[in-house]
Amino acid sequence: MIIVKIGGGENINVKGVIEDLATINEPFIIVHGANALRDQIAKKLGYEKQIITSISGYESVFSDEKLIDLNMMVYSGLKNKRIVELCQQNGINAIGLSGIDGGLIRAKRNLGIKTFENGKKIIKRDFSGKPKEINKELLDLLMNNGYTPIISIPLLDENNVAVNSENDDIVRTLHQSLRADKVIHLIEAPGFLKKPEDENSLIKHLSKEELISWESTSEGRIKRKLLSLKKMIESNPVEIIISDGRVKHPITNALNGEGTIIK
Amino acid sequence: MIIVKIGGGENINVKGVIEDLATINEPFIIVHGANALRDQIAKKLGYEKQIITSISGYESVFSDEKLIDLNMMVYSGLKNKRIVELCQQNGINAIGLSGIDGGLIRAKRNLGIKTFENGKKIIKRDFSGKPKEINKELLDLLMNNGYTPIISIPLLDENNVAVNSENDDIVRTLHQSLRADKVIHLIEAPGFLKKPEDENSLIKHLSKEELISWESTSEGRIKRKLLSLKKMIESNPVEIIISDGRVKHPITNALNGEGTIIK
Repeated sequence: MIIVKIGGGENINVKGVIEDLATINEPFIIVHGANALRDQIAKKLGYEKQIITSISGYESVFSDEKLIDLNMMVYSGLKNKRIVELCQQNGINAIGLSGIDGGLIRAKRNLGIKTFENGKKIIKRDFSGKPKEINKELLDLLMNNGYTPIISIPLLDENNVAVNSENDDIVRTLHQSLRADKVIHLIEAPGFLKKPEDENSLIKHLSKEELISWESTSEGRIKRKLLSLKKMIESNPVEIIISDGRVKHPITNALNGEGTIIK
Repeated sequence: MIIVKIGGGENINVKGVIEDLATINEPFIIVHGANALRDQIAKKLGYEKQIITSISGYESVFSDEKLIDLNMMVYSGLKNKRIVELCQQNGINAIGLSGIDGGLIRAKRNLGIKTFENGKKIIKRDFSGKPKEINKELLDLLMNNGYTPIISIPLLDENNVAVNSENDDIVRTLHQSLRADKVIHLIEAPGFLKKPEDENSLIKHLSKEELISWESTSEGRIKRKLLSLKKMIESNPVEIIISDGRVKHPITNALNGEGTIIK
C-alpha cells in the first residue's frame, strides 16, 4: 500500500501523477494540498491571511472561520473534485473525502497561541488541530470494495468542529493506522536539497540518524516537515520518497528511486 | 427511507433540518442545493453567469467550465462540508459525496443548445447533463454501515467529465433506484402556491391527475419542477411533501403534513 501526498504548489503535474497511478498494481490513497490555488482564490475574494506572532516570537497562520470556509471551497471542493474527475477519466474509481466525512480523521484541537493584544497577554484560539485518529473501518470498507480515497482537510475535532491541520501530520497519522509500505511526497523540487536554492544539491539518501540530526539544526517549515517525517519513521518502518512533482512522470520516477529516499 | 431535498435558497434553516433529522428513526439521504451561496461567491469572484437564448427563444444558464469550478467550490465544497459538520454535531455520521465520487450519479451529457452566433445557427455545448444511473451499491455499502450520504452536484457524464444537473432530476433518479417511501422538498415557501405571490394560497393536497393538469398549463422553472415530480410519481409510488424550509422545524412540520402533499 502506498500513501501519495500531492503538494499544493501550482507547478505540481497532477495529471501526470494520476496517469502514473493508473498504471501501478498496488493499492494507494492520496492526500492532497491546494495552498497555491487557495491563496489565489483567497486573494480574489479579498480574504487576508491572519498571521499571528506568539510571545516567543514564532509566526503562524491563524485559522479563523473564514479560512475553514476557504479550505472547504478549495481543498475539499474544487481541488478534490478535479482530482476525483481525473481519476475517473483514468479508470481509478476515486472517492473524495475530507477528514470530517464519516469522521475519517479526528483531531485534537490546538489550545491556542499565547500572544500580546493591546499590551496584554492573551490566548488566541483558532480552528486548527493535530490529527489523532483515523476511521480505518471506513477506509477499509471503501478500499475493499474497489474505491480509492482522495483525502483533504479539514479534520473533525473532539466537539465535531471542522479544523485545519498540517498535511504532513495527516500523512503520518494515516501511515500509523494503515501501515503503508511506501509514502511518496511530491513537492516542487527534485527532493530534499542541501542548499534550498540549489536544485543540484539533492540528497539522494537519508538514514534515520541523518534525518534526526538534520531536523535538530533546521528551522521553520522545513523543521516541521522533518519532525513529522522523523515521527513517522520512528513509529513504523516505512520507505519515504520525497520526489519531484513537476516532472512528466512524478510517480514512476519516484518509484524508480528518483528523489530523496529515507529508510 | 426518506430522500430530503434541501433547496439552495438563503433562508432555508439548514440547522433546523439537521436537528430534526437527528430525531427521526428512519434512514435518509440528503440532496442539497447551494444556489444563493453560489451566486454570492460568484459575484465576489467576478464570475458572470452566461445566459444563452435558444433558437426557439428559450433562455437557460450556460454551464461553462468555470461554473463547474464554482459548483465544486460551493456545492461539493463549502455547503456540503458545512452540512456534514452540522450532521456530525448532531450525531449523524454523514459522508458528503458529489455525483462524481465513486461514480455515484452517471449523467447523459446534454447535446447542446441551438442558438445564433453572429447570425449563424450553431450548437453550443456546455457541461450539463441529465442523471441516468445511480451507483446503488455504493449507497447501500455506506448506509448499511451506518453512514448517511449528503449528495450534491456535479455528476459524471459518459466520458467521465463533471457536469451540472438539476437537483429535481437527481432526486427523481435517486428515488427510482432507492424506492424511497417519502420525498421531502424543502423550499422557501409554505408549499406549492396557487398564486406564487400569495403565501396564503397553499395547495394542501395534489393528486397525480391534478399535478399532470397543472404541469401542462405552467411555464419556466415551475414547469420543469412539476414535470420532474410527475415523472417521479409515475415511475414508482411515493409520497412527495413540498414544505417550508424556513421554519424552526422543517422536517417535523413536513412529516406532520404541513405543506403540499402529493400522493
